[in-house]
Amino acid sequence: MKIDIENLKSIVGKNNVSDEIADLYVYSSDASVHQAMPSVVVRPKNIEDVQKIMRYADMEKIPVVPRGAGSGTSGHSVPIDGGIVLDLKQMNRILEIRPYDMLCKVEPGVTIDDLNRALKPYDLWYPTPPESGRIATVGGTIANNGSGVKAIKYGAARDYVIGMKVVLANGTLITLGAETRVEASGYQLHRLMVGSEGTLGIIVEVSLSLRRIPKFAAMGIANFNKLEEAGEAISEIVNSEVIPSTLELIDDIGIMALNKTLDMKLPEVEAIIVFECDGRTKGAVNPDLEVLKRICKRHNGFGIKVSSDPQEMTKMYSGRKKLFAALSRYKEGFACTSLADDMAVPNSKIAECARKIHEIGKRHHVIMNAYGHCGSGVLHTKILMDTTKKEQWEDARQAVEEIYDYVRNVGGTASGEHGIALSKAPSWKKEKAVSLALMRAIKKAFDPNNILNPHKMQDAPDDWVTATKLRYQVRG
Amino acid sequence: MKIDIENLKSIVGKNNVSDEIADLYVYSSDASVHQAMPSVVVRPKNIEDVQKIMRYADMEKIPVVPRGAGSGTSGHSVPIDGGIVLDLKQMNRILEIRPYDMLCKVEPGVTIDDLNRALKPYDLWYPTPPESGRIATVGGTIANNGSGVKAIKYGAARDYVIGMKVVLANGTLITLGAETRVEASGYQLHRLMVGSEGTLGIIVEVSLSLRRIPKFAAMGIANFNKLEEAGEAISEIVNSEVIPSTLELIDDIGIMALNKTLDMKLPEVEAIIVFECDGRTKGAVNPDLEVLKRICKRHNGFGIKVSSDPQEMTKMYSGRKKLFAALSRYKEGFACTSLADDMAVPNSKIAECARKIHEIGKRHHVIMNAYGHCGSGVLHTKILMDTTKKEQWEDARQAVEEIYDYVRNVGGTASGEHGIALSKAPSWKKEKAVSLALMRAIKKAFDPNNILNPHKMQDAPDDWVTATKLRYQVRG
Repeated sequence: MKIDIENLKSIVGKNNVSDEIADLYVYSSDASVHQAMPSVVVRPKNIEDVQKIMRYADMEKIPVVPRGAGSGTSGHSVPIDGGIVLDLKQMNRILEIRPYDMLCKVEPGVTIDDLNRALKPYDLWYPTPPESGRIATVGGTIANNGSGVKAIKYGAARDYVIGMKVVLANGTLITLGAETRVEASGYQLHRLMVGSEGTLGIIVEVSLSLRRIPKFAAMGIANFNKLEEAGEAISEIVNSEVIPSTLELIDDIGIMALNKTLDMKLPEVEAIIVFECDGRTKGAVNPDLEVLKRICKRHNGFGIKVSSDPQEMTKMYSGRKKLFAALSRYKEGFACTSLADDMAVPNSKIAECARKIHEIGKRHHVIMNAYGHCGSGVLHTKILMDTTKKEQWEDARQAVEEIYDYVRNVGGTASGEHGIALSKAPSWKKEKAVSLALMRAIKKAFDPNNILNPHKMQDAPDDWVTATKLRYQVRG
Repeated sequence: MKIDIENLKSIVGKNNVSDEIADLYVYSSDASVHQAMPSVVVRPKNIEDVQKIMRYADMEKIPVVPRGAGSGTSGHSVPIDGGIVLDLKQMNRILEIRPYDMLCKVEPGVTIDDLNRALKPYDLWYPTPPESGRIATVGGTIANNGSGVKAIKYGAARDYVIGMKVVLANGTLITLGAETRVEASGYQLHRLMVGSEGTLGIIVEVSLSLRRIPKFAAMGIANFNKLEEAGEAISEIVNSEVIPSTLELIDDIGIMALNKTLDMKLPEVEAIIVFECDGRTKGAVNPDLEVLKRICKRHNGFGIKVSSDPQEMTKMYSGRKKLFAALSRYKEGFACTSLADDMAVPNSKIAECARKIHEIGKRHHVIMNAYGHCGSGVLHTKILMDTTKKEQWEDARQAVEEIYDYVRNVGGTASGEHGIALSKAPSWKKEKAVSLALMRAIKKAFDPNNILNPHKMQDAPDDWVTATKLRYQVRG
């Protein structure tokens, strides 16, 4: 593949193109385990830049991998065929905020937190922040159908995208959707773009429908001696009349990690759940919280605390917030990897799935814990292992395969919010076996030359351990 | 086109196939203005039937038009190329209700009201009933992304479909989605199917996520001397902290029709709005209703009444409920046609759009009124005209074109909830001009022989008056 760097420089300016080895290295990985060097990094400033780059790339059949913050955990922005990494972070303008229409239009590179800061003076928010909202971009989370801690009440990215501008593989700019709250206007192509992980087009502008910021919120925490009892409480809360705005689980491995690395002095129980309710008035929210407390008690929850004091709430949530960091330092010589990291299961299977995760991890000599947005059915697991050892990767691979076999069998899905890309593709391809041909036909309709983030999802390799380079030093 | 009737009888049984002229006539129209005779009507009983029919039709390149209740207003199930009408109403089983997982699985032919009756004992509902819920089928409303009176709070069909089984044009059965509340698992093909109007596949099973039935609801009504003031009140309610469960407008033409044909003795004002709030407790709902009352007063609303008494609520809503019937009898010799019948505009444009509708109708010698689910931005207009006169059809065509030009210019869309099919295709094709090529490529990927509901939406004729037969007797 020969790339005309000078031509790219003439499009975006010489400061926005780099093929220096140090830059390429930075763009060779994201938050996943994978690594592959791009040929060149290009940073467009506007839609016209993107169109010109795509026209050139399509003509020359050069792979193009769009990239936001690079915070994806499954390898979305790792350029496994080389080519151009299209860094969209410079396209980070908030183009319009229309409070009366409760919508905004933004470029893809704006971060979720920056957007919400800009919306706050209008008493509006985009209520699906991922935990990485400080760095994650609107474009990235939408390409991935991301959600997060509020998904149980507020849904996912897909629920807020009412329209977008997309540059297709051949450089054509199209506008999708409308500026309205409902629409039944033919194929909902903007909904197909949500979750397409950069394989169908480059999202260059997004119209988001917004919500009023809730005026009142209160939080609760409960301890459980048995994981199963916490799971039953979670399932019953989801099944109740109340829709909490947050419902999170921390398991015993998580608790141990928090106590050991951050000295948080949490009770040494099998599970802690944290819940939050929000609404317009205290009078509406407090009775809801009482319902959740009663459910926790009924399932032998204890040490139940509830508060609407912001400082107290921050404290209650701090364990959950710091969990990823704690897990990363939990065991000497063990790294925390995102492999089977966001499976989703039906409400009734939460506890069973959490137990399975523990059991499978143990059997395969890695540490797997279970935590996360259980209220929306999402279980996060990180795999802690010695990433320098080849056999540990084989252990991890088997553990991942086994837990996904379980998830698939109970009607669950490989990804609740982090996407497929490379890491999850092997199991996901088994789950979606009957529709892969159709997905490939759609990909071909959008991108006949297969230049947009090629060899991801339906076209990804079947074995992530051997198919791409890992970003870890593995011996033997 | 030669169709082997005996072969079809061998698949579904002889009682489920008809090419009798009387039957074909019944299936030649729906609730739209269009008409075209099918070659044969086939009523499958199960998925295998549908697969066999599709395999045969695809091999012989016979058009297949899926049909639910036939309550669509834009010509979805009018078989403009002849061929097979596939009546799915016999596939009306509720396959599974899983209260703990808050989901159900149903066949496409079950009506919305039947489904909600079956869910009630579990304290669950599917909260997007169209006004035609008594006859409209789950499959039909999903193929159309239907919504209705509750859309302002509860969204549209798309917000509840978590998975489906689809028989593709070539007879292949595929399963889409999962049984989970969130998912980020690759191309969301079930979301593309929602709103595809029978052109991409036959929906043969649907998995719906469900909600708890709200425990408490209260309704309010307010009169306005000026349509603009009602519009401002609506926009401010939508923009407020409160999310009502219903927010409807009736204009002066509607009021006159209700008074004249049903003697409802409504005040002769320019606009009436009806609103409802629902929730878990009286304590949560009543303060919300107070906010809406205050907003109405601020915009000179008067005669404001509020009640949570079911009989009183039925009475308040009866004008809105009976409006379509009243319009149908409003003027001697005038029929009530669904043409530009469900445009959606941004919140700030509700009043302006309603006024435009009146003005354009008057200028083109037809009666156009404005009513409907204004809270979600949808304005219904029926066109009342003398359908026996050729020039009135030309009047109607011009009025439709003009109002859609306006809608498009303010960021609105041709259809909020009734779909495109034939009637709305000419204006919609202007709105979506830049993405028609992509839609055609997708259609080709799903249905290479173009047998599924052909010549609808992106492939529909550009002039609905002359391209298909009208179901009215037109002279001269």
